[in-house]
Amino acid sequence: MTQDATVQEKITEESRSVYAHARDGLMSMAEEAKVAQRLLATSSGALRAQLLESIAIAIEADRRAILAANQIDLDGASDLTAAQRDRLTLDEARIGSMVASVREISRQRDVVGEVVEGWVLANGLRVRRVRVPLGVVGVIYENRPNVTSDASALALYSGNAILLRGSSQALHSNQAIVASLKRALVKVGLPTSLVGLATETSRDGAIAFMRLGEAMDVLIPRGGPELIATVRSQATVPTIIDGDGNCHVYVDEGADLSMAVAIIENAKVQRPGVCNAIETLLIHASIAEPLLRLLEKALPAVEFRGDERTRQTCQRAVAVTEDDYAREFLDLILAVRVVDSLDEAIDHIRQYSSGHSEAIITESFGHAQRFEREVDAASVLVNASTRFVDGGQLGMGAEIGISTQKLHARGPMGIAQLTTTKILIEGEGQIRC
Amino acid sequence: MTQDATVQEKITEESRSVYAHARDGLMSMAEEAKVAQRLLATSSGALRAQLLESIAIAIEADRRAILAANQIDLDGASDLTAAQRDRLTLDEARIGSMVASVREISRQRDVVGEVVEGWVLANGLRVRRVRVPLGVVGVIYENRPNVTSDASALALYSGNAILLRGSSQALHSNQAIVASLKRALVKVGLPTSLVGLATETSRDGAIAFMRLGEAMDVLIPRGGPELIATVRSQATVPTIIDGDGNCHVYVDEGADLSMAVAIIENAKVQRPGVCNAIETLLIHASIAEPLLRLLEKALPAVEFRGDERTRQTCQRAVAVTEDDYAREFLDLILAVRVVDSLDEAIDHIRQYSSGHSEAIITESFGHAQRFEREVDAASVLVNASTRFVDGGQLGMGAEIGISTQKLHARGPMGIAQLTTTKILIEGEGQIRC
Repeated sequence: MTQDATVQEKITEESRSVYAHARDGLMSMAEEAKVAQRLLATSSGALRAQLLESIAIAIEADRRAILAANQIDLDGASDLTAAQRDRLTLDEARIGSMVASVREISRQRDVVGEVVEGWVLANGLRVRRVRVPLGVVGVIYENRPNVTSDASALALYSGNAILLRGSSQALHSNQAIVASLKRALVKVGLPTSLVGLATETSRDGAIAFMRLGEAMDVLIPRGGPELIATVRSQATVPTIIDGDGNCHVYVDEGADLSMAVAIIENAKVQRPGVCNAIETLLIHASIAEPLLRLLEKALPAVEFRGDERTRQTCQRAVAVTEDDYAREFLDLILAVRVVDSLDEAIDHIRQYSSGHSEAIITESFGHAQRFEREVDAASVLVNASTRFVDGGQLGMGAEIGISTQKLHARGPMGIAQLTTTKILIEGEGQIRC
Repeated sequence: MTQDATVQEKITEESRSVYAHARDGLMSMAEEAKVAQRLLATSSGALRAQLLESIAIAIEADRRAILAANQIDLDGASDLTAAQRDRLTLDEARIGSMVASVREISRQRDVVGEVVEGWVLANGLRVRRVRVPLGVVGVIYENRPNVTSDASALALYSGNAILLRGSSQALHSNQAIVASLKRALVKVGLPTSLVGLATETSRDGAIAFMRLGEAMDVLIPRGGPELIATVRSQATVPTIIDGDGNCHVYVDEGADLSMAVAIIENAKVQRPGVCNAIETLLIHASIAEPLLRLLEKALPAVEFRGDERTRQTCQRAVAVTEDDYAREFLDLILAVRVVDSLDEAIDHIRQYSSGHSEAIITESFGHAQRFEREVDAASVLVNASTRFVDGGQLGMGAEIGISTQKLHARGPMGIAQLTTTKILIEGEGQIRC
């Protein structure tokens, strides 16, 4: 007996009909998506750009219906925090941003068919590695309804079908947006099954979504640690994890203090609730006192949680805990630690980093090189704010997430990361000796 | 309660001590490997080449001990088929090949640190994507003891630690080879924990190996369908599947028949037991008769299994079944089907292909283009033998496997596929507006 059978047995014991029903529905949705995707895979970039323009027009035209659906979701969602409610809420401006994002994606250079590398062998065979769509992309996400249109535009533009599984709180909003997407598909003569929305929003439904096996080519979960843990232990689909951002700035001995203050302020305060904001500041002991005095003035709204040496200078700081170092505050809170060397800073980062983005502020060429080489993170920055780690900011185009895993995609994931490659080998009758 | 807990609960009920013991042992092995790997990640290419030379010397020096250990394995393995016994057997010549492979890998250009792409942003930030090792690579495989040295050389040369889990039948051979690898590591001053061999070779041990979570960065299973299915349903480590090769050749209307015969003969007969050999031949109806007459003469040792139209011409052919089309014979058997169009050939391939390698023989530019575009496989060939789909043959260096999945690596996996990338961003104080 396979363990897979064990898992399913357990699930069906608990909730036989929900899981089985969700699985059957999702399986047919995925199969239809795969058939439809073949058409898109060989379509022209012009048609895919036209599809995105058609989506932009449809969302604009349907904005009242989308807002009305969103109101139903907001009315039905009683136990949300203010931040969660904010993420769920749509308004004219936010719909405008959704439309603008779709149009922006359609202006990116097409990646389908791109020749990644190519060479000719001694026997005359011509070899090329070319980009092709992944196939059926699954996205499992939480409250933000704009993910529905953003992720769909990225997936479709790169030639993929997409299966969406949002939260139960956002179901009406997502259904309304998906209705617009399907109208747009019809407009350009493409099958509506290129976009599928999972409407069974229970936990069993989520697990069925993750366990579609080969019917889904990749699953991108966007959500909190609990979702990620479930995906890690349950998914039978290959996944790309969009993980936490427990990011650090280390200010080295001899660093330019005004540069340090500007970068720390930008990386902590500009938008504290995002993954590329910093959570912990590491300071070399030799400059701790002057830097902390400057930071106290520059960051009046930030709560400092410091180690003993930090608190000697920074009266405002409360005592930091082990747990603070390990957390992503997503708030105006900054953990601070004074270290005696670059090695100590790198060790701290190694212990607590989530592998998202790590920065050093230094004037030392050697220390910059060592930090770049020894810190194991998707992005490593020297004398720049971690807030730049974003597909748009880095000139890589809109992103479907920021991968903190090592396989397939690491860092911002845009349309190129929604493709795989195929090797084309052309000859005139060559055989192997 | 997570499903992970459910799985473990089930396992521990069945075999608490085996699973728990294996898991604890593997977890410490993986943790030690990760610590040691940090050293290798920042080592010079020269040191890694020196390590491989040291491995070659150690295996050569220890060949008697390795052969003696192999003899113990052979004596202990009673219920093996001839082919399985052959795969398990080592002799002087095979040890010579193992040594030669290690040396060949050490002559490849180093990939660690390679700048994959790079650009400068309008704000002056300099962005580079550079190759870095994946970290801890796991390989789970069956009888061939040469995989132990091949996979280790590829992983170590690309800066990774490696955890190996071979079959119980090959345990003594693998232990002897790993002892040589560890002696070589000591010789060049590197920690022996860079190579780990799992000695708990039960099924529970295998499952514990697959469920190491974040302690292992990638798992490459090399084995039959049962192993792959277990990995798909059990693994919590990201995997790269080295899948089956159910490969096809389609001979198009108007194809050069002598070219077709040469390629079919090469792709079927040269080495029928490997994944890049063909299993099914598709022939356009217009040339079926002359081609089959030529093939009957050219392939005297091959058993033909044909559809009705094939059997009209080819008296020797037995009736083909649905199951034959779906199988990888790995033998001198060829399924044959006569089709009426390129579309029918592509449909057949879509239905039965394992996504490894697919070839067309054609004189039509348009048909070649369509076949390349519409066939969804890791490698697509025009007028060339599928036997070229091999890292060495394609000039991509020695391979750790041939991926039939779409994520991270597709097609032959060499040292470049054992790396990930890291984005380096350098500035002089830039902050985000």
